[in-house]
Amino acid sequence: MKIAVFQMSAQGDHAARPDRIEAAMRDAAKGGAQLLIAPELALSGYGRGAAFDHLSQSADGEWATRLRKTARDTGISLIAGFPERDGDTHHISAMVIDAAIDAKPVIYRKACLYGDYEKAHFSSPGPSTIITDLGGLRVGLLICYDVEFPENARRLARAGVDLIAVPTALPDGASGAFVAAHVVRTRAFENQVHIAYCDHADSDETFTYQGCSSIVAPDGAVLAQAGGSGDALLFAQIDPSAYAAARIENPYLRDAAEVRLFD
Amino acid sequence: MKIAVFQMSAQGDHAARPDRIEAAMRDAAKGGAQLLIAPELALSGYGRGAAFDHLSQSADGEWATRLRKTARDTGISLIAGFPERDGDTHHISAMVIDAAIDAKPVIYRKACLYGDYEKAHFSSPGPSTIITDLGGLRVGLLICYDVEFPENARRLARAGVDLIAVPTALPDGASGAFVAAHVVRTRAFENQVHIAYCDHADSDETFTYQGCSSIVAPDGAVLAQAGGSGDALLFAQIDPSAYAAARIENPYLRDAAEVRLFD
Repeated sequence: MKIAVFQMSAQGDHAARPDRIEAAMRDAAKGGAQLLIAPELALSGYGRGAAFDHLSQSADGEWATRLRKTARDTGISLIAGFPERDGDTHHISAMVIDAAIDAKPVIYRKACLYGDYEKAHFSSPGPSTIITDLGGLRVGLLICYDVEFPENARRLARAGVDLIAVPTALPDGASGAFVAAHVVRTRAFENQVHIAYCDHADSDETFTYQGCSSIVAPDGAVLAQAGGSGDALLFAQIDPSAYAAARIENPYLRDAAEVRLFD
Repeated sequence: MKIAVFQMSAQGDHAARPDRIEAAMRDAAKGGAQLLIAPELALSGYGRGAAFDHLSQSADGEWATRLRKTARDTGISLIAGFPERDGDTHHISAMVIDAAIDAKPVIYRKACLYGDYEKAHFSSPGPSTIITDLGGLRVGLLICYDVEFPENARRLARAGVDLIAVPTALPDGASGAFVAAHVVRTRAFENQVHIAYCDHADSDETFTYQGCSSIVAPDGAVLAQAGGSGDALLFAQIDPSAYAAARIENPYLRDAAEVRLFD
């Protein structure tokens, strides 16, 4: 299955973001992709601060309704980050819209909130294992800081995912550069899974982002990589069977179970 | 504390290996190091195959006795890999000789054996947490393939180590190159600890090694790095207090505990 990652510049009018995501869905579908991934809090923008109180929507809100229609019209599935309202609680969430099924989106809620900013505006429900079957591919979800914890990626790998989709909002700076260059690739390699890491770029009113979105293979190879600035639409073919030799050479899950490392 | 990593070429007479390790202890001590780390199965050579049956020694065998004396004479502590005999069982082990204490070495036994070769000749006791205090530094031990599993490094980090010493025998090839370039640095970063990764280089009668030994800081920075070939003696100052800012920026252990990721 061909997938696309939509790195979004944080510049410009926040209100135009749903339009930009829909345009990317159409472009990705034209390019042969069956799934588009957008960044963390892609629908609102990441740096909105106190505005999240009124921006947050439910899993069957206006954004979801609109994007479900676009998915049906274009035939492309979507994973996109948004601020989710659940009663009085707000989560950093990602919605999964399967173009083949007209149903309320599957929702993943970020487990590991980073820093005072996220903890001030959002709640964590703790770790959860959300996996959806999209076009025959088992796709697991994490958001940003989640993937920096090996426990989160391992949990999904042990549950049998082929691909981990990671909407992110990685800040500019040395730590962010290290995560983009080393941590994401290591998560793929140590679990022998694909990872799609989809970031913002440039600056909004609050933060500057790393860019450098990527799609990484189970052997750690970078299949597609965006630059540090601007919108980018990355494509890669996800074919888990092509990495059978890598899994035989690096049988981490089997060997870990053999010495009871998971107990 | 200053430490040294002794990357050993696999070429030459295996019988000379204890002499080479002693010479490196003297050179490292002259260079101001208080601890020398040697590779996996450094005392015997890694590619010895069936010969391990008669090469293996106990923790108070000839190698340990001799190296304890050298540690006392030179004032430098030692971590070195050797094939360990324990009754009829053989382990891939590392001995820790504290120059300040005249006692039988502390022993760590490799948990995660790699491939048919290691599993044919050695047994795993399963995961264990071996930490020694050397000159005020809390030093944890893993061997080679162990460090490719995030669970092993995490266990030591949660037990409060400052440095993970990793004698290794990393094979040449794409996977080995990935481990040396990305996995080792990610283990340091995601746990905010130092890692000393000490490999063989060149070829013995059975294998070719990656070289590229390194000493890595808690922020993922490479403090010292060897080339792909030949003996090398790397030095680095290990000062955990210098990375207080990195630990505040990347509080992985605290944030993981907060959302019960370790439960």
